[in-house]
Amino acid sequence: MYVHGYSNRETQRLLEQSLILEELLHSGTRYSDGSKVLEVGCGVGAQTSLLCKRNPGIAITAIDISEQYLKQAQKVVSDLGYSNVELMHKDVMNTAFPDESFNHIFVCFVLEHLDKPLDALVEMKKILKPGGTLTVIEGDHGACVWSPWSEESGQVWDALIKTQQELGHDPFVGRKLYPLLMDAGFDVDCVLPKGVYGDHNNPLFLDDVVNQIIVPMVDSVKKQVIKSGKVTEQNWEKGIKDLIHVGKADRSSFFYTWFKGVGVKPSLPGKV
Amino acid sequence: MYVHGYSNRETQRLLEQSLILEELLHSGTRYSDGSKVLEVGCGVGAQTSLLCKRNPGIAITAIDISEQYLKQAQKVVSDLGYSNVELMHKDVMNTAFPDESFNHIFVCFVLEHLDKPLDALVEMKKILKPGGTLTVIEGDHGACVWSPWSEESGQVWDALIKTQQELGHDPFVGRKLYPLLMDAGFDVDCVLPKGVYGDHNNPLFLDDVVNQIIVPMVDSVKKQVIKSGKVTEQNWEKGIKDLIHVGKADRSSFFYTWFKGVGVKPSLPGKV
Repeated sequence: MYVHGYSNRETQRLLEQSLILEELLHSGTRYSDGSKVLEVGCGVGAQTSLLCKRNPGIAITAIDISEQYLKQAQKVVSDLGYSNVELMHKDVMNTAFPDESFNHIFVCFVLEHLDKPLDALVEMKKILKPGGTLTVIEGDHGACVWSPWSEESGQVWDALIKTQQELGHDPFVGRKLYPLLMDAGFDVDCVLPKGVYGDHNNPLFLDDVVNQIIVPMVDSVKKQVIKSGKVTEQNWEKGIKDLIHVGKADRSSFFYTWFKGVGVKPSLPGKV
Repeated sequence: MYVHGYSNRETQRLLEQSLILEELLHSGTRYSDGSKVLEVGCGVGAQTSLLCKRNPGIAITAIDISEQYLKQAQKVVSDLGYSNVELMHKDVMNTAFPDESFNHIFVCFVLEHLDKPLDALVEMKKILKPGGTLTVIEGDHGACVWSPWSEESGQVWDALIKTQQELGHDPFVGRKLYPLLMDAGFDVDCVLPKGVYGDHNNPLFLDDVVNQIIVPMVDSVKKQVIKSGKVTEQNWEKGIKDLIHVGKADRSSFFYTWFKGVGVKPSLPGKV
């Protein structure tokens, strides 16, 4: 189950987010022409489109567990005119692809929503060719700070974390990329923090990050949170209003960090 | 009052920290030959030495409120053979320097230990020449994550935060650099996160960051924390042991971020 749900607002958020963060997250990821690249958990095709745009010479297979989102992904990539991508309905835990099918695999904002991220990585390694890379980008909700802070904005953020954890998923997976990649048997090329910071020196960027990515992400769990009693409706409204203000005010700042890791499937059998 | 105290271990920590983080924090800070540069809150001379080394053509005045630390700073810079620095015993809140005395001011890990950081910035602006820069580097204890996490390692970290707050100081000042610089009347050139991330891909660096900077920083408040009952002695020992392990283990990671801001004193009177 996807903690942020499958709404039109979430589709819009995922597409806007991918554009706002394109350079931060995709820079350094460039695949050789002719590569067969698998994107795992493509959702509405937000990152897929960027992979297509930035790597016109590759053949992309993009899989997701949600048929609803796959339909939207099909529309998104078709509207943009990309023809080098095949969308497939698959469960990452058991893709049924033959072993060593892909030159490279790309995963963005996916492990945090899985019951068993390590098992997913092991499956990915199986269908990756030896010497191929796995690129994985995940956030960490524990490394997010903003100013001005308020009790209520802290409450709504904590409630998002709690809600995701109650689904059995991990909002702190970013810090665990290195151990996860190692445990799955990859050679780790690197893991790097990819922090986003905004203040009123770049007011449009600050507003974009806070009000196109963060606020709708948090607000997607409003119903569950209030129903569960984690936060009162009044405090929720105040918390969201305070977060919106962080993106709009001229004396505010916001920081969040993702982590981007690259693992390589060892070429020598037995080196796991 | 300095939350980490004035021990030999803290002196050692400050000196080691400055070397481990030199490139991360000093890169981009280069002063023209002949500049008069003030370092505020030089402590034991850890950052002072780097300023001397990286800017041999400038004249540095370094002030601190602790005479004990100033003596150590004198020894540190003398032992390194730097002669372009004058150390003075001064309170940043009221330096008694004539207005517009300095071309540039450098402040590192200081605002977080002051009762009134904004007033300090206003005083700095007063003694800075118009068009001169203020460079300020401060951490934010709210943006620190590690893996493996444990209840107890979380407890000791939270206790450090609480102890600093109880002194009336701000362990979350990093996120507030932009508003503080604006409120003090600076033109803000930029504020940027300076994140440090380590894992076993670079085991010496991971160990240095965790066990030369973070663990001794946290452990410096042990006595107060246990006396106050915030954490039991048993949990404290376990928490510190777990943090040490983060720096040593081969499947661990650590992330912390400082923020580095540069403000310019406006040249036009009235533009405040």
